[in-house]
Amino acid sequence: MENHGRVMYELAGSMFPICRSITGNGFRKSLQMLKDVVPEIQMHEVPSGTQVFDWTVPKEWNIRDAYVETKDGEKVIDFTKTNLHVLGYSVPVDQWVSREELFSHLYTQPDQPDWIPYVTSYYKERWGFCVSENQKKTLNDEEYHVVIDSTLEDGSLTYGDLVIKGDSDDEILLSTYLCHPSMANNELSGPVVQLELIKYIQSLSHRRYTYRFVFIPETIGSITYCSQHLEELKAHVKACFVLTCVGDDRDYSIIESRYADSLTDRVLRNVLRFHYPDYKTYSFLERGSDERQYGSPGVDLPVCGVCRTKYHVYPEYHTSADDMSLISPEGLNGTYEMMVKVINALEYNYHYVVACCGEPQLGKRGLYPTISQKGSYNAVKATVDLLAYADGRNDLIGISDLIHQPVDVLIPIINKMRANDLLRVKELE
Amino acid sequence: MENHGRVMYELAGSMFPICRSITGNGFRKSLQMLKDVVPEIQMHEVPSGTQVFDWTVPKEWNIRDAYVETKDGEKVIDFTKTNLHVLGYSVPVDQWVSREELFSHLYTQPDQPDWIPYVTSYYKERWGFCVSENQKKTLNDEEYHVVIDSTLEDGSLTYGDLVIKGDSDDEILLSTYLCHPSMANNELSGPVVQLELIKYIQSLSHRRYTYRFVFIPETIGSITYCSQHLEELKAHVKACFVLTCVGDDRDYSIIESRYADSLTDRVLRNVLRFHYPDYKTYSFLERGSDERQYGSPGVDLPVCGVCRTKYHVYPEYHTSADDMSLISPEGLNGTYEMMVKVINALEYNYHYVVACCGEPQLGKRGLYPTISQKGSYNAVKATVDLLAYADGRNDLIGISDLIHQPVDVLIPIINKMRANDLLRVKELE
Amino acid sequence: MENHGRVMYELAGSMFPICRSITGNGFRKSLQMLKDVVPEIQMHEVPSGTQVFDWTVPKEWNIRDAYVETKDGEKVIDFTKTNLHVLGYSVPVDQWVSREELFSHLYTQPDQPDWIPYVTSYYKERWGFCVSENQKKTLNDEEYHVVIDSTLEDGSLTYGDLVIKGDSDDEILLSTYLCHPSMANNELSGPVVQLELIKYIQSLSHRRYTYRFVFIPETIGSITYCSQHLEELKAHVKACFVLTCVGDDRDYSIIESRYADSLTDRVLRNVLRFHYPDYKTYSFLERGSDERQYGSPGVDLPVCGVCRTKYHVYPEYHTSADDMSLISPEGLNGTYEMMVKVINALEYNYHYVVACCGEPQLGKRGLYPTISQKGSYNAVKATVDLLAYADGRNDLIGISDLIHQPVDVLIPIINKMRANDLLRVKELE
Repeated sequence: MENHGRVMYELAGSMFPICRSITGNGFRKSLQMLKDVVPEIQMHEVPSGTQVFDWTVPKEWNIRDAYVETKDGEKVIDFTKTNLHVLGYSVPVDQWVSREELFSHLYTQPDQPDWIPYVTSYYKERWGFCVSENQKKTLNDEEYHVVIDSTLEDGSLTYGDLVIKGDSDDEILLSTYLCHPSMANNELSGPVVQLELIKYIQSLSHRRYTYRFVFIPETIGSITYCSQHLEELKAHVKACFVLTCVGDDRDYSIIESRYADSLTDRVLRNVLRFHYPDYKTYSFLERGSDERQYGSPGVDLPVCGVCRTKYHVYPEYHTSADDMSLISPEGLNGTYEMMVKVINALEYNYHYVVACCGEPQLGKRGLYPTISQKGSYNAVKATVDLLAYADGRNDLIGISDLIHQPVDVLIPIINKMRANDLLRVKELE
Repeated sequence: MENHGRVMYELAGSMFPICRSITGNGFRKSLQMLKDVVPEIQMHEVPSGTQVFDWTVPKEWNIRDAYVETKDGEKVIDFTKTNLHVLGYSVPVDQWVSREELFSHLYTQPDQPDWIPYVTSYYKERWGFCVSENQKKTLNDEEYHVVIDSTLEDGSLTYGDLVIKGDSDDEILLSTYLCHPSMANNELSGPVVQLELIKYIQSLSHRRYTYRFVFIPETIGSITYCSQHLEELKAHVKACFVLTCVGDDRDYSIIESRYADSLTDRVLRNVLRFHYPDYKTYSFLERGSDERQYGSPGVDLPVCGVCRTKYHVYPEYHTSADDMSLISPEGLNGTYEMMVKVINALEYNYHYVVACCGEPQLGKRGLYPTISQKGSYNAVKATVDLLAYADGRNDLIGISDLIHQPVDVLIPIINKMRANDLLRVKELE
Repeated sequence: MENHGRVMYELAGSMFPICRSITGNGFRKSLQMLKDVVPEIQMHEVPSGTQVFDWTVPKEWNIRDAYVETKDGEKVIDFTKTNLHVLGYSVPVDQWVSREELFSHLYTQPDQPDWIPYVTSYYKERWGFCVSENQKKTLNDEEYHVVIDSTLEDGSLTYGDLVIKGDSDDEILLSTYLCHPSMANNELSGPVVQLELIKYIQSLSHRRYTYRFVFIPETIGSITYCSQHLEELKAHVKACFVLTCVGDDRDYSIIESRYADSLTDRVLRNVLRFHYPDYKTYSFLERGSDERQYGSPGVDLPVCGVCRTKYHVYPEYHTSADDMSLISPEGLNGTYEMMVKVINALEYNYHYVVACCGEPQLGKRGLYPTISQKGSYNAVKATVDLLAYADGRNDLIGISDLIHQPVDVLIPIINKMRANDLLRVKELE
C-alpha cells in the first residue's frame, strides 16, 4: 500500500512546477509524463476553432516568462518563482505602466492575504498578475515595467484517453483534468490516482466491463470529449467518475448525479457507507468540475464527482497554499484503495438468483454449523441473508444495502455459493 | 399595495351588516355588490327542489326581523343589533313562551361566554336564537314574546361565476362562499380577495390558462355547482383553490388535496416555502369548507383550501368576535399578493428543455463572468442550475423545488434564456 | 376472555412434559392432543429420505430414557427430570467414559449458569447432554456411565393441517411449529393460540377467506410442507402468519416480510399501531423461524412472524427457564384477541367505493347532526373521512391508515353505509 502512495506522490511532485493551462505545451508535457508511465494512453489534438456543442475550441496559449520590474531592475513579481503569478491566458504585454494601472491588472484574495489566488480569463483577452494581498501592499513605486512573454494563437486543445476492453461493451468511465498550473490537490492528485487505477485495471486477469480513462482540460475538455464521442458514451457508459482533489488526508466526498439515482451514486454510497462512514454527500447543485458537463442535459451520463475534501470547501482551494504539503502518499493511496473497492463492487454487481426453491441446505455442504444452539446462527448470517435476497430483484449493491453487509464480505460468499451451484447470475444466462 | 388592501377592506365593511344565508335575498344582495364592481360576473338561480347529486336544493329563506321581548316590551334579544342572534334558517314564530321553553331554543358557546355563536339548522325545520352565555344568564323573566319574521318557501339558490378565457382550455378554478351573516374573516375576506384577483386576471395582457371564479353558498353551493358543471370541470380544471378566512394578519395555511399530490398542492407549497416559510399545512382530513365537495370521490378536482389562520383553529371562528377588527387591509393584501405569485407560477409552469447539447456557453452571450476566481460562480448559479434541470423531466415548479430557487427568481432568467434561444418549451411545440 | 386464556394455558401445561423433536412420537402425541380438541385436523406422515426441495426428510428419532450415572449408581444427569438434558437427536450410547470425554459431550450456556440450554444436532450424528454451567462444575468423578436409549431410524416426519373453506379460494395461512421439547413460550404458546383461532374461524357464520392452519416441525417441516403444496400455496395465499413465542405478557413484535410490503405486514402494522402502539418491528433480516422458509426465494409467500417478545430476544429463550411460569392465560389471550382483530380486518378488507357522486347527504338519512355549530362535525368525522377515501383506490386497511381510524371503528360504519346503499364493494361486483 505504502508503495502505491509513494509512487503517486513522487510523480505529482515532478509534475508540480509545470505551467499548465487548458491548451498549450504545459498540458502536453504533463500528459506525456503520464504516457511515459502508461504508453497505451492516446494523445489527441483538436484544432482551435473547432465547434464543440455550443462552444468553440479556443486559441492555444503558451508562456515563456513574465515579471513586473521596478526602475531599479528588481523583479517584484516573478513567474519563475511560481507560475500562479500570471493570470491564466494572459495576452502578451511589455510596457511601463503607472502603479494605478498595474493595480487594475492585479488579482488578490483579500480574505486570505498571504496566498496568491489562481485566476484565469480564458474567454476574454486580458493580461494580469496574481499576488498575495500582503505582497500587493509592498508595491509603492510610481511606475513598473510589466512583461508577459506569452502567445495566444491558433493551435489545438490536447487530451488523452485510454480504452481497456472487457467482456462487455458496457463501460466504466473515469475522467480527470490536467489544466491547472502549480497546485497539488486541485490538479495533480486526480491524474496520478487515475494513472494508478489504469495500472490496476491492466493488471486484472479478467474484466467484466470496458474501462475508459480520460485526461482533459476542465470544462472545455469534457465538452470537447463529449461532443466528439457522444454516441458511444451514451450507448455504453454505465458509471462515470470525475476524480479531483483526491490527495489530502481528510474525509471523502461525493457529488451526486443529477437525480442521485445512478449506478455511480449507488456504488459510491455503498462502498463509502461501510468503509468510510464519515464521508460527505454534496448534491448535484454543488457540482463544479467536469460532472457539470458529463451530467448536463443531452449528455446525461451517470456521473458523480469523487473528492476527499471537496473543491470550494477546503481553504487552500485555488491558491498557492494548495502545494505538495497539502497532499500525501497516504491521502492518494486512500482514494486509490477506495476506488479499487468501487471497481470490484461493479465487477461483481450482477443480479444473483438462488438456484433452488426455498433455502438451500447449507449443512450438507459443510457451510452451516451442525450444532444448533443460541448464537450459532451468527456465523452464517451474511450467507443466509444473501441467499434470501438473491431473488433476481436486486443486484449485488442492492443486496449489500438491504442486508447491511459490505460487498467485500459478500464476494467470497458468492464465489463459494457459485462453486456449489447454489447461485445463478441472471446477466450471464 | 396598500391600495388593494384598503379597497378590499372597505368593500368587506360595506357588506358586513347584510344577513346572508345559503339562499335568499341576503346572498343575492351581497353578490350584486360584487357584480357592481365586476359586472362580468354572472348570477344564476337554481330552483328549490332541484336534485343536485345526492342532495336537493332547499327552500329559500328570507328574514325581515326577529326579537325576544319581555312583558315590559323590552327587546332583550334583537336581530337588528346583530343578525347572528337568529338561528340560521329559523322558521317563523310569534308566540309567548315560558323561560324554560325559550331556553330550549337558545344556543350559546359556554366556553366563550362573551360571544354569540353562529349556529344554523338548514336541513331540519326549527326556530331559535343565539346569545352569549353571559347574556343568557340575565334572562330571568317567566315569559317571553318570541318573534321571528321569516319565510321558508320554494324559491331558488343563487350563485355567481365568471369564466375568463385564456390561450388554453385548461382551467384554474377559484371558489369562495358568500353565505355567512355578519362575520368578517370567515365570510367576507374570501369574496373580496377573489374579486381583486378577478381584476388582476382581467388586467393581464396575456393569459395561458382560462380562469373560472365561483361565488356560492358553502357545501350545497359547491354540490350544486359541481352537479351542474361536472363534465367541463373534470375535463379542464388543472388547479382549484377554495379561498376562506384570508383576511387576518396571522400565518398562511393550506389544506392539502386528498392525496396531497396535485398541481394545486405543488404550487402552493412552492410559493409558501420560499416566501412564507412559517405557513401551516393541514391534511385533507382537516378539510371543512368547499374543498370537501370539490375533492370528493366522483368530483375529484385537484382542490386545496387556502387560509391565513384556518377556520376551526382561530378562537373567534363562528362567533360574533369574527368582526371587522379581526381582518385588516394588510391581511387581505397579503393573501392577494400570495395568490398573484401562485398565479404567476402557474402561468410559467411549463416543461423547459435546454436547446443545445451540454451546458450552453453563457460567456459568449455576456451572461457569465469573464474572470474565473473563487466565488465568481455564485452570480450565475440560479441560471446554471435552471439549465441543468431543464431536461424535459421537470416543470418550473419542479425545477424551483429541486434547485431551491423561488419561481420569481427564475422567471426573469427564463425570459433571458428564451430571448437567447437557449430554452425550448415542451408544451408549446 | 379469561376463559380463552385459561383453556389455552391448561392445554399447554398438559403438553409441556412431552419430549418432542422434529420427528418421532413426541411430535405425534402432541399433535394428537390438539386433534383431540379439533378432530378436523389432518395428520400426515412423510417418509424419511423423501426429497423436499434441496433437503431430505431425516431419520425418525425416538427416545425412552437417558442418564449419566456415577460408579455409585447416582444419576447425576437424568432425562426424566427434564428432557432438555439430552442433546436433541442424540444417537444411542451406553458406555463408561472418562470425565474428560463426558465433558466433550456436554453443552452448557456459560453466560446463564443456572439454566440448561436447549441444543440439537439434527443433521450430524452425535450424542450429548445439556446441563447448567453450575451443574457441570459439580461433576468431579473420574468416570461416568452414559446411557441414551434412543433410536434414529427410517420412519417419517409428521405434520398436521386443516383447511376451512370460505367464499373465496384466496387463503389466509397460519403456521406454527410443535417440535421443541419442554419449553413453554417457545413451543406450546404458538400451537395453543392457533388451536383457539381454529375454533374462532369455525364459529364464524360466514367467511370470506379460506383459512389454512399448519402444525409442523420447524424448518424441515415448513420446507416439507411448501415442497408438497407449493403450487396451491403460491396460487392462493394472500397473507401468512407464523405464530411463535406468543404466550408471555410483554410487548408484541412482528417480523416483517422480505420487502415489508405484503398484505400481512399491512394488516399487522395497522392493528398493532392502533391497539398496541408499543409493538416492536423486526426486519426480515432478524427472521429465525418458519418465515425463513415461507419467505425464501421461489416460495415467496407473504409471510410475517408474530410474537410477543421475539425469540432470540428474551433471556429465557432456548433454556430451561422458558417454562410454564413464563407464559400466562392473559398473555396467550392477548395474542388470541390481537389475531382475531387481524382476521376481522382481513375479512372486511375490500376496496369500497362511495355510491354517489360527491359527498352523500347523510343528514336526510339521520346520519348527520341537524344543528351546525362549532364541534358538531366531530361526531361524524370517521364516517365522512371514510367516504372521502372510498374512491376505489384504497382497501379498508389503506383507508384506516390514511384517516387514522382503527378498522374496528370503521366496520360498523361500513355496515351502516352499505345498509343505506352508500358504499359499493369493488371486489363483489
